[in-house]
Amino acid sequence: MWDDGRMRRQEDYLATEEPLEIRIGEEPLTVTMRTPGDDVELAAGFLFTEGLVQRRAQVLAIEPDSGDGERNRGNVVRAKLEPGSAPDPEKMRRHFLATSSCGICGKASIDSVRAMSLAPPNPDFRLDAEVLVQLPEKLRASQAAFGRTGGLHAAALFDSSGELLVVSEDIGRHNAVDKVIGWALLGDRIPLSDAVLMVSGRGGFEIVQKAIVAGVPMIASVSAPSSLAVQLAREMRLTLVGFLRGRRFVIYSGDERITS
Amino acid sequence: MWDDGRMRRQEDYLATEEPLEIRIGEEPLTVTMRTPGDDVELAAGFLFTEGLVQRRAQVLAIEPDSGDGERNRGNVVRAKLEPGSAPDPEKMRRHFLATSSCGICGKASIDSVRAMSLAPPNPDFRLDAEVLVQLPEKLRASQAAFGRTGGLHAAALFDSSGELLVVSEDIGRHNAVDKVIGWALLGDRIPLSDAVLMVSGRGGFEIVQKAIVAGVPMIASVSAPSSLAVQLAREMRLTLVGFLRGRRFVIYSGDERITS
Repeated sequence: MWDDGRMRRQEDYLATEEPLEIRIGEEPLTVTMRTPGDDVELAAGFLFTEGLVQRRAQVLAIEPDSGDGERNRGNVVRAKLEPGSAPDPEKMRRHFLATSSCGICGKASIDSVRAMSLAPPNPDFRLDAEVLVQLPEKLRASQAAFGRTGGLHAAALFDSSGELLVVSEDIGRHNAVDKVIGWALLGDRIPLSDAVLMVSGRGGFEIVQKAIVAGVPMIASVSAPSSLAVQLAREMRLTLVGFLRGRRFVIYSGDERITS
Repeated sequence: MWDDGRMRRQEDYLATEEPLEIRIGEEPLTVTMRTPGDDVELAAGFLFTEGLVQRRAQVLAIEPDSGDGERNRGNVVRAKLEPGSAPDPEKMRRHFLATSSCGICGKASIDSVRAMSLAPPNPDFRLDAEVLVQLPEKLRASQAAFGRTGGLHAAALFDSSGELLVVSEDIGRHNAVDKVIGWALLGDRIPLSDAVLMVSGRGGFEIVQKAIVAGVPMIASVSAPSSLAVQLAREMRLTLVGFLRGRRFVIYSGDERITS
C-alpha cells in the first residue's frame, strides 16, 4: 500500500472469482464467473430466471459435479431436468445470442418480458417506510465477507416485517440475485409474493426482469436504477425503490405498496 | 422521494439502458445492454477484446445500421470483416458458451489468456505515484453525466503524464472498457503501451483480460480487484492498482512501474 508517500506491505482479503459451468445432463449450457458458494442455488436461479424452467418440479436433480477431472472440481453444477423441458442446443444458442426478429430496442426488451405471460406481482404487498429504511443496515450486518473484501455484491430477501429470509454474495450482481431466487425455487417459495428483494448495487433491466419472473413485488437498492429498469417496473407494476440511504429513498414505481 | 417521513416529487435523471446488437455482415453476433453513445467504439472494442479480430485492418467497415425497421434504429452496429476473419457461427457459439475441455477453474481461465500468446505489456512504462493519485478526480471531472445519474460506470485511458486520452461511460463496466479500447483500435493506437486504464468499478478477471489483449501495462481502480484478476495480472506482468482513494492506493501486482 502507498499511503501519502510511504509504502508498506499488508495482508489483504480478495473476493474470490472462479468460473462455474452449468450443465444440463452432459450438455454444457453456460459458464459464468462467480464467487464460489451457493453454487447449486446459483445454477437453479439461473435456469429459472432465464426461463429454462418454470417450476421446481421440472428440476429432477441439481448437484455439484466433479467435472472432467481434478482441476474442474467444485466448478461444475449438473442439472437433470424433466424430460421435454431441456431446451435444444439451437434454441439455447438463439436464447443467449438473442435474435434480430424480436426487435432491438427498449420497447422490444419489455415486450419480451411481457410475452412470458407472468402474473403481475402481488398488488396487496405492503411495506412500511420505517421498515424499508432499516434494510441496508440489516443487509450490511449479514454480509460477513463484505467488510473484508470490499469487492462483493449482495442480494437478500426480506419479508414485510423486515425479517431476513436469505442473503447471498457474489462478485457479480446478477449472480447474487440468481442465488437468492434459486434458494427460493429449491425451497418451493416461488412466487415470492410477500418478499422484497434488496440489492447492494444498481437496479438494471435484468435485475427487474429476474424479480418479475420470481413474482417479487418490490425491489430496493442503495443506488440508481436504469431508465429501462424503471420502464419495466412501471409496465409490470412492480415497486422499485432506489437511493435507499439513511432515512431517504426514491420511489420510481409502485408507491402504493409503501406505507408510512 | 421519501425523506425522513415526508414525501415529495422531484425530477430525476436516469442512466439510459438499451440493447445493442452487433452484427457481422448479416449474422447477429451478440446483444448487450448498454448506455447509448460510442456504439461503434463499443462494437469494435468487443470484437477486439473477445478475440474475434486481432488488428485494425481486419475491420473493413463498422457503422450503425438502421436495423430491421423503425424500432431498431440506433441499436444495431454492423461490422464488415476481412474475408476469412469472420468466425463461423458454431465456433462463435462455443466461444460464448465456452467449452468443458478447456477446464473450468481459475487456472484454466488464466491458461486461456496465456494461450492467446500476447506479448507481455510494456515493461518500461512508468507512472509517478503523485500522478496516479490525481486520476480519480480527473476521471470524475470528465464524467459529465455521472453527477446527474449516479448510475454509470466510467473507463478512461491516461498517458504517463496523467493526460486524459479518452473517457467513456456505460451502465456496464465491461462496456465502458470496450468503448475506450475500441476507440484505440479504430485510431490505430493498439498496443496501448504507454497508457493506464482507469476504471470506476471493480477490477475483475475480464477487465484485466481486456487490458492485456489491448497491451495496456497498468490498470487503476477505486475499488477492489478479485482474486483471479490479481492472479492474472501477476502472471501476465501487468500492474494492478486498487482502492485508489485520496492519497492512498494498494498495488496488487507490478509495483516496479510505479515511481515516487
